[in-house]
Amino acid sequence: MAKEKQFVKEITSMEEDFAQWFTDICIKAELVDYSTVKGFYIMRPYGQALWENITHILDKKFKETGHENVAMPLLIPESLLQKEKDHVEGFAPEVAWVTFGGSEQLEERLCVRPTSETLFCDHWAHILQTYKQLPMKYNQWCSVVRWEKTTRPFLRGREFFWQEGHTIHETPEEAMAETMQMLDIYADTVENQLMIPVIKGQKTESEKFAGAEATYTIEAMMHDGKALQSGTSHYFGDGFAKSFDVTFADRNNGISYPFQTSWGLSTRIIGALIMTHGDDSGLVMPPAVAPIQIAIVPIAQHKEGVLEKAEEIRKRLSANYRVKLDDSDNSAGWKFNQYEMKGVPLRLELGPKDIENGQCVLVRRDNREKTFVKLDELESEIERLLGEYAKAIYDKAKANLVARTEYLDKMEDIIASSKDHDGFISTLWCGDERCEDAMKEQAGLSSRCMPFGQQDDIDGVCPVCGKKAKHRVIWGKAY
Amino acid sequence: MAKEKQFVKEITSMEEDFAQWFTDICIKAELVDYSTVKGFYIMRPYGQALWENITHILDKKFKETGHENVAMPLLIPESLLQKEKDHVEGFAPEVAWVTFGGSEQLEERLCVRPTSETLFCDHWAHILQTYKQLPMKYNQWCSVVRWEKTTRPFLRGREFFWQEGHTIHETPEEAMAETMQMLDIYADTVENQLMIPVIKGQKTESEKFAGAEATYTIEAMMHDGKALQSGTSHYFGDGFAKSFDVTFADRNNGISYPFQTSWGLSTRIIGALIMTHGDDSGLVMPPAVAPIQIAIVPIAQHKEGVLEKAEEIRKRLSANYRVKLDDSDNSAGWKFNQYEMKGVPLRLELGPKDIENGQCVLVRRDNREKTFVKLDELESEIERLLGEYAKAIYDKAKANLVARTEYLDKMEDIIASSKDHDGFISTLWCGDERCEDAMKEQAGLSSRCMPFGQQDDIDGVCPVCGKKAKHRVIWGKAY
Repeated sequence: MAKEKQFVKEITSMEEDFAQWFTDICIKAELVDYSTVKGFYIMRPYGQALWENITHILDKKFKETGHENVAMPLLIPESLLQKEKDHVEGFAPEVAWVTFGGSEQLEERLCVRPTSETLFCDHWAHILQTYKQLPMKYNQWCSVVRWEKTTRPFLRGREFFWQEGHTIHETPEEAMAETMQMLDIYADTVENQLMIPVIKGQKTESEKFAGAEATYTIEAMMHDGKALQSGTSHYFGDGFAKSFDVTFADRNNGISYPFQTSWGLSTRIIGALIMTHGDDSGLVMPPAVAPIQIAIVPIAQHKEGVLEKAEEIRKRLSANYRVKLDDSDNSAGWKFNQYEMKGVPLRLELGPKDIENGQCVLVRRDNREKTFVKLDELESEIERLLGEYAKAIYDKAKANLVARTEYLDKMEDIIASSKDHDGFISTLWCGDERCEDAMKEQAGLSSRCMPFGQQDDIDGVCPVCGKKAKHRVIWGKAY
Repeated sequence: MAKEKQFVKEITSMEEDFAQWFTDICIKAELVDYSTVKGFYIMRPYGQALWENITHILDKKFKETGHENVAMPLLIPESLLQKEKDHVEGFAPEVAWVTFGGSEQLEERLCVRPTSETLFCDHWAHILQTYKQLPMKYNQWCSVVRWEKTTRPFLRGREFFWQEGHTIHETPEEAMAETMQMLDIYADTVENQLMIPVIKGQKTESEKFAGAEATYTIEAMMHDGKALQSGTSHYFGDGFAKSFDVTFADRNNGISYPFQTSWGLSTRIIGALIMTHGDDSGLVMPPAVAPIQIAIVPIAQHKEGVLEKAEEIRKRLSANYRVKLDDSDNSAGWKFNQYEMKGVPLRLELGPKDIENGQCVLVRRDNREKTFVKLDELESEIERLLGEYAKAIYDKAKANLVARTEYLDKMEDIIASSKDHDGFISTLWCGDERCEDAMKEQAGLSSRCMPFGQQDDIDGVCPVCGKKAKHRVIWGKAY
């Protein structure tokens, strides 16, 4: 049966074919499946559990910082999408259009939301009256649709899941502070829960969100040296408010426009997680979001007392961890491979000898290091090992990012480097979009961001045109 | 400003115009807002928080009973929808069709999912191989779209939120047990968390889900005597599996079709909650799902120490309850009305005199009963009052259901009763669809269900045709 191939856990080596390695993991770790709907993926239980864990962490942080969840309509009338000029130009070419309701053709066609700025503005125009209602800090968890030509699981799909935050404020300062706060929450979550190092910075004019005044980003580097934009936070000024006539009675008895932000993080972050931490045995999950943190594999489970003890330990650990006891009749070796493919941080082995000795074996997913642990020290040892493991996968990713980042100032070096290998290239830049275009044409690089904390000491020239530099930019090839 | 009307908290009396009363509450309690997308509503923070509380209760019960969340595509190709004959007949007339992706016309049009049986079957056909994988017990939280002509918040919208559970099993017995288990979980949640009494039963052939072998339902009675179907659980047999060629290698080395269920509960339940418990002052929230369980209203809050003490109590109660301290400069009277409109179960009043006496006042939303409570007995008194309150709103709803249920056996009495007032009418029935149609034509009644536990003692005749009865049926006018 051809179907059975799915259960063979071998995957393409990442050195051999990184793209195929990635897809193999997505399918064989059972994160997603292909659907018969072209460009749409099915989120399977393991992928969905991972996404839910990520959403719970973020949702908690959003609520702690005063945000409230709402739900906007799925469909947007064409006339509403068109109210903001830059926005419609950016999104109209890639939306799905609903033209019929049942057997009746609609008077006005509706697009499936590609993002919801227009709907939020429309709502605010309806409910906002006075500065006393400000700020309004909303978020929604949903899926959006963008009609992509080529698709890959998590990285580019015609439908993807995300959260989109939308806020309005009395002053530009407050809105900008919100923009930065949310970027910081993304960076904190991605660095400290997903253990993926990121670079925070501002997008160039040509890379910013359609309709935004400024877009801020966290950029991560994948194992192969390519970049992945992992979360963005936008400052809109009052541009959308003016287009949608969102006004409020201000403190001076006048009528003012509010200042606006939006920010989003999507299931692309799962793509980043796979390509940052994964290896040739499969996924490597950060403990904070791993659907299974500890997989208990009984050894010689037919022997008396083994399964009972394993179940006792499962129950005990379930108070603090997400634990799975695999008592299926598959071989222990098959189980080892299975939970390595799924990236489970710790494997707990327990056999008759271990039980006699009042111990078990803990095996780390990242380096397969074995630790014999007394059962009465189990919790503290797990805590220690998970902490060390999380730090180790972060450090490894950080080392990759550092090793693959070059600071170059000559165009010939930039071209040579980008031909030779993928990675980040940090250069000065004059700020002219034509030089940004030249970098793409000559070296195949797009600007990832103008990194924070590196924009003060800009003494030098643009490597493309030789004019005085205004910014430092990190360039890369991006997913 | 016309806009300001929204902040005036008066609503139409329920006796005067029940439909208007309902809509007034939806808007003025800030559960939803109208959008400019016809037939689509905006779920505002208060409505979304209520729905989230309901989802958390259900999601926990689903997971405890071994279900896993997944996410299927938003869009369904027409050819896939057409694979099950009854299903497509039931749903095709009311779906929204996507015909363009960007500027390109699609080769095959796609509908926005009205429900996802077809997608789940398609997925199972792809991944199911052996009985060892069974059962597969999946659920998804999402919105669905049905192109309704007339719409009302929560009760009938072109988009609504729900969960849809989909499971496949090795045997019909297991699938039927699952169908019943999920109906019981719905009944338990609606009765014991939402405090809405329901009647469990089976739908007649003409009222069952398109493509199901049998549909089971929980039916609630609204304050006005009309029925609201509050959750349904379907047994499919192997009909869908055969249409979608879902097969597995069985225990006898043969190839078998699995037996299937689906079950759903939607935001309609919020409509039920409003129309079961609400009164002329607004919402009345069951404590288990109330976004705010206790609203603290400081009295003479400008007086020294009042706000500090109120904040101290807020902090203390927040460990166990969802608490809001309203320290805005609105009057205490305005705040009382505000939290009554929002249905907050307990109001906690605290003024300088109370602080002196080491006490506060707790006021129940349902009967406005005041209790003076010593601050050191606060938690136990809150627990007692919330328990009594929850029981009281259930008992009130149950009394309405009992009072408005008649057992009739003559057609003239049925017609007279249904002309005179709304309520449930319980009768015998021969099982013939033509008599069911006649009941609709002559008395304006639809069959709500054949109630469980009342199908054994069927000694009598059908009030329409006079033939021997086979079932007992509850009839009503339905939302």
